Amino acid sequence: MVELRTPKGTRDYNPLEQRVFNDLIEKITEIFKLHGAVNIDTPTFELRELLLNKYGEESKLIFNLEDQGGDICSLRYDLTVSFARYLAANKIQKIKRYQIGKVFRRDNPSFAKGRLREFFQCDFDIAGSYKSMVSDAETICIVAECLRQMNLGSFKIKINHRSILNAMVLSAGVSPKLFGTVCSSLDKLDKMEFKYIAEELKSKGLNDTQVEFLKNYVYLKGKEDLINNLKSDILYKHEEGSRGINELELLLSYLNIYKLSDSVEFDLSLARGLDYYTGIIFEAVFDNYKELGSVAGGGRYDNLVSSILPQNSSLNVPCIGFSFGLTRILPLMLKNTEIKNISNIKVYVTSSGSLLLEERMKVLRELWSNKIASETFYTNKFNFNNALEHVQKNDIPYLLVLGENELKMGKYKLLYGEQKKEKLEDSLNNLILFIKK
Amino acid sequence: MVELRTPKGTRDYNPLEQRVFNDLIEKITEIFKLHGAVNIDTPTFELRELLLNKYGEESKLIFNLEDQGGDICSLRYDLTVSFARYLAANKIQKIKRYQIGKVFRRDNPSFAKGRLREFFQCDFDIAGSYKSMVSDAETICIVAECLRQMNLGSFKIKINHRSILNAMVLSAGVSPKLFGTVCSSLDKLDKMEFKYIAEELKSKGLNDTQVEFLKNYVYLKGKEDLINNLKSDILYKHEEGSRGINELELLLSYLNIYKLSDSVEFDLSLARGLDYYTGIIFEAVFDNYKELGSVAGGGRYDNLVSSILPQNSSLNVPCIGFSFGLTRILPLMLKNTEIKNISNIKVYVTSSGSLLLEERMKVLRELWSNKIASETFYTNKFNFNNALEHVQKNDIPYLLVLGENELKMGKYKLLYGEQKKEKLEDSLNNLILFIKK
Repeated sequence: MVELRTPKGTRDYNPLEQRVFNDLIEKITEIFKLHGAVNIDTPTFELRELLLNKYGEESKLIFNLEDQGGDICSLRYDLTVSFARYLAANKIQKIKRYQIGKVFRRDNPSFAKGRLREFFQCDFDIAGSYKSMVSDAETICIVAECLRQMNLGSFKIKINHRSILNAMVLSAGVSPKLFGTVCSSLDKLDKMEFKYIAEELKSKGLNDTQVEFLKNYVYLKGKEDLINNLKSDILYKHEEGSRGINELELLLSYLNIYKLSDSVEFDLSLARGLDYYTGIIFEAVFDNYKELGSVAGGGRYDNLVSSILPQNSSLNVPCIGFSFGLTRILPLMLKNTEIKNISNIKVYVTSSGSLLLEERMKVLRELWSNKIASETFYTNKFNFNNALEHVQKNDIPYLLVLGENELKMGKYKLLYGEQKKEKLEDSLNNLILFIKK
Repeated sequence: MVELRTPKGTRDYNPLEQRVFNDLIEKITEIFKLHGAVNIDTPTFELRELLLNKYGEESKLIFNLEDQGGDICSLRYDLTVSFARYLAANKIQKIKRYQIGKVFRRDNPSFAKGRLREFFQCDFDIAGSYKSMVSDAETICIVAECLRQMNLGSFKIKINHRSILNAMVLSAGVSPKLFGTVCSSLDKLDKMEFKYIAEELKSKGLNDTQVEFLKNYVYLKGKEDLINNLKSDILYKHEEGSRGINELELLLSYLNIYKLSDSVEFDLSLARGLDYYTGIIFEAVFDNYKELGSVAGGGRYDNLVSSILPQNSSLNVPCIGFSFGLTRILPLMLKNTEIKNISNIKVYVTSSGSLLLEERMKVLRELWSNKIASETFYTNKFNFNNALEHVQKNDIPYLLVLGENELKMGKYKLLYGEQKKEKLEDSLNNLILFIKK
């Protein structure tokens, strides 16, 4: 006997979940389009060699396809690396694009935390050489607009800069080789106390002084005030540090123009695990759902495209972008929904007295040609009360009732509204006009 | 160096292709919703054992995931088997649903023929016990409505019945065991002459008389006339044969109610390869694109759900449905498109004289809040003529030009229409009202 379950870490989505999901996608893509983004699509799996060395310590979570002869492939781990390959392969130097699709991670799944092995990501990215921080500001503006559309209350976009992290690590006297692994430890500060992170850092080879040095920075948060403090800090004497701090200052001035400064905060503990980030990095959290962690994250990755190009290529495509973890947001959206009419049917067609199947089919045909979503029952058994109960339970606004006597007189009856008021029309056409009003 | 290509048999889709694809999806889902269909989603891969023995001779084309410990999985081959598993797992006895997603076949790819290893399918199915042929007729009605929406000219939906094929094979005296493989030979009649099919049938063990017997049927096509002829044929004496012929007759009467009889034709050569069909089967072809083969196909599969349930289960869920091969239709849609403004940007914001970056950002913010899709340039270099060329080339209806002197006077300039007529407004708000009109 075949097991009827889905594979570990994957799940089905029922009609209500898909309705809420599709409504969300529609809202988000509307915002992307408002900003002139176009859509692309890339394959579900890529040549395995493309994905290697892109995800730091997370690379072990890549899902592989079996070698059945031919290409050696793996399921995509995110949409970003595929996007970079798309740019490199097509020599595209400038594009604002979005992409929505499933990505795959052979992680230890947790449905409660929204961590699955197959989940939907919704990505927006701007590729191209622009004035500093201008496309960064627009990207954060789009994140904020999307979060607002979700109606899940207030949120915060935490921002940091890889150059500042770099300057922190180097100023602490830690070897640059350890940068990636130090970042993934620091990134855990929203999940655990610093003393555990300190242990981890020491096990990675840092000494007490170095750990203490880093501790002084990771609790720093703020906006203009933080920038001003950092400008008189030792980090600002560091070339990387001053670049990062100046860029954050410029970014903040643009975010002020977009009236977004209330929604953002610089946070020096934010690190993000992926290896490819080079500039600003950010994560978004809903204030009422902090336990869920970040619902969106992203950053600047200026070298990813050139890293997969031949060394003699002169193509250089700086990029910035973010991902929404749609599968993680879905449970929140579901909690806030009250959809009863999932299919959005407007008219349910029934009969009284006898079946009148062919007559109901004729009526349905007219309703469909008039773009009115409608249905009938297809069984031999029927009952007027069942139909009434059906439209009430499913919030269907109109019940069209065919009766043999009415049909003989060319009359059509409609029940509508909370009170199921009755309306008798002289022709189906008039009834349709009434429904369309 | 990493290869920049996509894996064999897969491809990227660029913004124009995705725009046309998304527009098509939107049209098709509108029709599904008109009929009250809801949407579900299932995982990209399934437990491998679920997919075994479902696809007849095609099973060798299944893509497997590597065994990395844990579940043994394969990429889905179609959406139908996953749908049946969804019904069985959730004990659903009645649903009208659609699903759109990628499916995977390790086939010999041919881009020209639209045959890829990864392609999009768009499925619609009705599950549940209904009066005979009623949901079958609605399904064909939906296929026809979708095909009409594609604007690719006239089309034909070819229909046959598995019971009639069965009666043909049995009446010919062929062993029932050979039914599947005989069907896949007959199915090739639209691609090759009968003499080659005859060779194939003989190599499968049929004798000359049997082949000659089948040949007399596979050229039969028609509607009422065909049904009437078949009613006095030997097939009608066969239990399976008479059931099939009577069902097609009833189906035709319903299709007449839906005013669809011009678009359909019964065709006894149609067989379809998949093992799970049990009742009517059908395929759609555009008259002007016959070389492409069928763009949609489907049929009734009454036993698929119960076949994956435990033997003691009493759940019986008859189903009918179809798939659109969207990846195959896309090239036709592209040929017929004239989209120049892929991103649908309405206003391009530029400046004259000086950069005015922050002023442009302020204007964009207002346009975005008013839900007007708009963009600007983000580089240091700019040139008014380039902006004019850009809006003309991309069919962008409005060019908003900021000038230092105009801004001092609180004036905003817009160029619009074929002639790029000039309009000067006293406030940005008035300009926005003009654009929104």
